Amino acid sequence: MSEQGTLTRRALLVGVGAAGGAGAMYAAMGALGLAPGAHETRPEDYVPPRASDFSLSGRGAAKVVVLGAGVAGLTCAYELGKAGYDCTVLEAADRAGGRNLTLRRGDRLPENGGPAQTADFQEGTYFNAGPGRIAPWMVAMDYCRELGVPIETFVNNNASAYVYTHGMKAPVRARTARADMYGYVAELLAKASHAGALNRRLTRDDRERLGEFLRRFGDLGPDLSYRGSTRRGFTAYPGTDDGVPLGAPGSLAEVFAAGMGRAITMDFGYDQATPMFQPVGGMDAIVKALTRAVGQDRIRTGARVTGLKNLPDGVEVTHTGGTLRADYCVTTLPPHLMARVPHNLGAQVTAALRTPVPVAAGKIGLEYGRRWWEIDERIYGGVTETDLDITHIWYPSHGYHSAGGLVVGYYNTEENAELYGRLSHAERRARALTQGKKIHGERYRADLRSSVSIAWHRQPHIEGGWVRWPSYEGAFTLLRCPAGRVYFAGDWLTHLVAWQAGAMESARRTVTDLHTRVVRAPA
Amino acid sequence: MSEQGTLTRRALLVGVGAAGGAGAMYAAMGALGLAPGAHETRPEDYVPPRASDFSLSGRGAAKVVVLGAGVAGLTCAYELGKAGYDCTVLEAADRAGGRNLTLRRGDRLPENGGPAQTADFQEGTYFNAGPGRIAPWMVAMDYCRELGVPIETFVNNNASAYVYTHGMKAPVRARTARADMYGYVAELLAKASHAGALNRRLTRDDRERLGEFLRRFGDLGPDLSYRGSTRRGFTAYPGTDDGVPLGAPGSLAEVFAAGMGRAITMDFGYDQATPMFQPVGGMDAIVKALTRAVGQDRIRTGARVTGLKNLPDGVEVTHTGGTLRADYCVTTLPPHLMARVPHNLGAQVTAALRTPVPVAAGKIGLEYGRRWWEIDERIYGGVTETDLDITHIWYPSHGYHSAGGLVVGYYNTEENAELYGRLSHAERRARALTQGKKIHGERYRADLRSSVSIAWHRQPHIEGGWVRWPSYEGAFTLLRCPAGRVYFAGDWLTHLVAWQAGAMESARRTVTDLHTRVVRAPA
Repeated sequence: MSEQGTLTRRALLVGVGAAGGAGAMYAAMGALGLAPGAHETRPEDYVPPRASDFSLSGRGAAKVVVLGAGVAGLTCAYELGKAGYDCTVLEAADRAGGRNLTLRRGDRLPENGGPAQTADFQEGTYFNAGPGRIAPWMVAMDYCRELGVPIETFVNNNASAYVYTHGMKAPVRARTARADMYGYVAELLAKASHAGALNRRLTRDDRERLGEFLRRFGDLGPDLSYRGSTRRGFTAYPGTDDGVPLGAPGSLAEVFAAGMGRAITMDFGYDQATPMFQPVGGMDAIVKALTRAVGQDRIRTGARVTGLKNLPDGVEVTHTGGTLRADYCVTTLPPHLMARVPHNLGAQVTAALRTPVPVAAGKIGLEYGRRWWEIDERIYGGVTETDLDITHIWYPSHGYHSAGGLVVGYYNTEENAELYGRLSHAERRARALTQGKKIHGERYRADLRSSVSIAWHRQPHIEGGWVRWPSYEGAFTLLRCPAGRVYFAGDWLTHLVAWQAGAMESARRTVTDLHTRVVRAPA
Repeated sequence: MSEQGTLTRRALLVGVGAAGGAGAMYAAMGALGLAPGAHETRPEDYVPPRASDFSLSGRGAAKVVVLGAGVAGLTCAYELGKAGYDCTVLEAADRAGGRNLTLRRGDRLPENGGPAQTADFQEGTYFNAGPGRIAPWMVAMDYCRELGVPIETFVNNNASAYVYTHGMKAPVRARTARADMYGYVAELLAKASHAGALNRRLTRDDRERLGEFLRRFGDLGPDLSYRGSTRRGFTAYPGTDDGVPLGAPGSLAEVFAAGMGRAITMDFGYDQATPMFQPVGGMDAIVKALTRAVGQDRIRTGARVTGLKNLPDGVEVTHTGGTLRADYCVTTLPPHLMARVPHNLGAQVTAALRTPVPVAAGKIGLEYGRRWWEIDERIYGGVTETDLDITHIWYPSHGYHSAGGLVVGYYNTEENAELYGRLSHAERRARALTQGKKIHGERYRADLRSSVSIAWHRQPHIEGGWVRWPSYEGAFTLLRCPAGRVYFAGDWLTHLVAWQAGAMESARRTVTDLHTRVVRAPA
């Protein structure tokens, strides 16, 4: 594609939602030296940087300032560093990691407009307050491998966990919910087929194969009826004597009315499918490994950015600790925060940064001194699905059988997270315990040892769990191109919003763009 | 129930399959001092022994010889030891553990009628040649907890693993198989419902709830058709750009003809449901912990039992290393081997021991120097299901991202295990590689580093993967009662045949019977 073509396409995309202003904007960008260059023509076969892909010598060695030491910023600095760039990372908070946050004993958690909490956990307990799981196809797995971060299985689906909905009198085990739903669905279809209702659609062979599958799928009786199954679970599991299965299932109408569909299909999606994974010892093992690889001395914490300028031959960043000049800047700040930083990137950039909508998300970590969920309820890892405002309860997928452990008492988003976010920590805890008690009984409240809650939309320097794009055109496309010497990166600029892998993929894309520009620039 | 009632019931049960001989048999047993005593009346509320449940002092301290140092024998000795009994365990093999066998570098694996193999694995590689997974409700979990054996998640279901059947041109990922089967099943039922085929069975409310579930379950379009789904997987997963989903699914007839039903429903059962668990570092961690707890000095390996006698006041065991007298004996030998040991327990006991049928089972461990299944195929743990004679391929659920690893190239039973068992190791390996290559391509053969195969029905002192009972009456019931001072235990005497938990449950039952008898005996 010709450069003119590229410019035209970009201008058109930028113009979406700002009718008539595209031409004027582009002229303004050109005057500021912001017009995109040859770096937009990315080689299609470009391989994302890995160790030794880049050379430390030659003209790749430019100075880059990275704004934000979250996963995107750290990945940028890591990949650029491998290629010989001189990077400095500025981070407003007093720690690197951003939303990749693992809380341990003594850690302090500030909150905008509220008091800080201090984790009072026992030694060995941790709380992944941000991301908690990685799908096997995600690039986060590759970084764990490359950086030597040991991983272990994260249990995202547990037949022994519960399902609880407003349609139920009492929680049921996921295995029971699934057996009953599948049983009745299989019965209905098998009987409809038997009665000839599918004869116009299916051949005799098809119907026989369908029938065979349905008997297996629903554990149907010879008359094609579902009357329960050992798949539901047992009052006493088989041992020396035969097991005592749970009683008969509710009627078809009762089972349908319980509304368990979401819970049962929760892990069908490509991003939630079993198995998933987690770093051993806490998600921030990734942050620690990236920090080591980048070099602790290159990361300045407590440095809040207060200004960003494109200059004719570089960038200038002002922050609470001083002023920094570099050849290029990559900003990974959340877009809604970057929009507030005084800059000379143009009003369209500000408008674009304001386009994605921050989404509220919250979690509470409930620590217990005894793993009652394992010993008494035989739940080892996994998730209880509810339609309560807590949405989920997560059980730890590590430290099985150890003395204590931490349950995630809610992981909710949007309205539910806003509701909890408006409360004090004590109120959040009380509400979470009241809800969880419906599933686990009084000990859920009585045995609590300590707790910490996070409202990501109230976290300083972050102010959101992630963002929601009204559309993947316009502002999204604009910000994927550099504004002069300033590049953007973050999960918010990908189709993997809310995943660390998005931050990493975005970082790879951005440093590839930047590096391509640098190596192609005239000497 | 009166004692007379108990006797009558037992005599009746023993008589099944031996019409007319019950009375005669009982008379013979009485003459030999084999008649059951008060110990048959077990307190219903008896709690299986745990640490400190028993007292070391008093008349509980009898001398017991345990035959077989498999999981059942070790558990018997462990629980009796906690209660103050003086136990000696005789084991024919040169190691404890029985079928709980983990092979590592340098381990020698003998085979009846064939040459021994020696594991040539790299340091750190292990092969669970016997049991490999534990369900969370099983008592094996409690023993891991009590004995301090760390456990980790065993991935029994992996959406990224493959399904391969004769009905397929090429293997498909489990996620794809599931999405397509569920998609078409949901479409058929949703359309049948829409066309009124369920109106006589379901109310309007039911139909609406069913429809809502089916749309979610099958990821159906607004017209209730299934046309594929991102659940099938991607050619390129979402990242900075939107993902490129796999192409459209095959037709309904093609998907049904592929015969994926068994693979999809594999983990629906109560004993296979996700998640499952394994000891860290190899299944024999349980054996090692039990051995430590029992006391290595109480276990005599290389001691094959050659005779067993009930005496008026005890038992006498002859073995390849001498003769041993004790107050009681618990034999945990496989029934088909115990039947061959000369004894004075009566012909009915021998006949009963010959009733359960040994089942062939086999596994091959294939070691690779590189985890291509993780790095190239994004399969981290889990099982590929096939209808080939290899049945399954297991990927390791531990050591993710380490330098090498071991894949279980087949785990088969019955006819398939007999077929492989008849081959030499080199032939087994060649056959397993030829089959696996259909799924993983040429490197499955080319990259192999080393291998070990086991045919459990050809293992010395074991001669079977497990047993199959023609019925749970008659012989099964007879052998759950002591023959005089000789008790039986093992997974083969439970409704958890082929599971370690069965061996443990049986051991608990047997030592409870024995202990009850001892503490009730006149001083």
